[in-house]
Amino acid sequence: MHSHFQPVDLKKAYRLLNHGPTVLVSASHDGVDNVMAAAWACALDFDPPKVTVVLDKIARTRQLVEGSGYFVIQVPTAAQAQLTHQVGTRSLFDQPDKLASIGVQLARVEGYTAPLVQGCSAWLMCRVIDEPHNQHTYDLFIGEVVAAWADDRVFRDGHWAYENADPQWRSLHYVAGGHFYAIGEAVVVDSQG
Amino acid sequence: MHSHFQPVDLKKAYRLLNHGPTVLVSASHDGVDNVMAAAWACALDFDPPKVTVVLDKIARTRQLVEGSGYFVIQVPTAAQAQLTHQVGTRSLFDQPDKLASIGVQLARVEGYTAPLVQGCSAWLMCRVIDEPHNQHTYDLFIGEVVAAWADDRVFRDGHWAYENADPQWRSLHYVAGGHFYAIGEAVVVDSQG
Repeated sequence: MHSHFQPVDLKKAYRLLNHGPTVLVSASHDGVDNVMAAAWACALDFDPPKVTVVLDKIARTRQLVEGSGYFVIQVPTAAQAQLTHQVGTRSLFDQPDKLASIGVQLARVEGYTAPLVQGCSAWLMCRVIDEPHNQHTYDLFIGEVVAAWADDRVFRDGHWAYENADPQWRSLHYVAGGHFYAIGEAVVVDSQG
Repeated sequence: MHSHFQPVDLKKAYRLLNHGPTVLVSASHDGVDNVMAAAWACALDFDPPKVTVVLDKIARTRQLVEGSGYFVIQVPTAAQAQLTHQVGTRSLFDQPDKLASIGVQLARVEGYTAPLVQGCSAWLMCRVIDEPHNQHTYDLFIGEVVAAWADDRVFRDGHWAYENADPQWRSLHYVAGGHFYAIGEAVVVDSQG
């Protein structure tokens, strides 16, 4: 990656998802890479950090997660809205050149096979905690976050800095049918109150 | 409630949470009401709609959920930021008049004991799907949404209308330490693309 790609303290990794962004889920197995979009991803624990994500049985990415035991949750930016919608609506089953046709660029971090999507604002490398009942009954996967990174132009010192970054860095929050909201203005309350 | 309090089609109830807002969780058991804040709530399924929410073992609200088998997930507004932070940081264990001191006003809907917090933008009445392993190991509760409502000044015809409502209606997205973001501008992509 580049000089703005910086590690995030695992104890603060939950903050990358706390505001509820729509995410991209990537995985790799047996030489096959894929990326999907997921609105249903959520922090589950602080330390060690854990996340939940819903992966439908029809998703090719789910097979890669089950095969490899790893996935990456990453936070796409407003600049990636079209890409996010496209990886969420096209299937690798139907379109073997899905990623290339959408222009998704992947990167690897030493020690991990699961690929990172370039241009995102944050990445959480997750190891699947095997919970067959949840996976089968609810399509619900639990992952332990084993490493995390963010782009320091928009997340630094353990905090999002959306208010001081270009609006193109804002997180996306999906509703339906190609409609997202970008994250908006800061609201700060008296934390002693 | 009031004339703006309108039922939401259960098949579209997931849209009330899809953009990842911080929520309030309320419950009632044996005559005790409580409300807490939760950043870790998420849609889990469309039809029948289900949700996940993380309820820490130290939360009094968790006991009320376990005792009654019901909880309400509601979406607070930017106007309720201070209230949201206060119900999330004060405990009914320490402060028996917690709700009154914060100014939380509750309402009931016929047929349900779990209370709704007035002034929110949306409400999901949830019945606990008993999953003892998830509850014990991960503090993770799964609920089936059995009824849903929204304030039609900000959610109507199955869609959020933040862009056409007063900014005080915007959802809150918590980061840490009294810092939230409000939801921001609409981002619409070519859904055929």
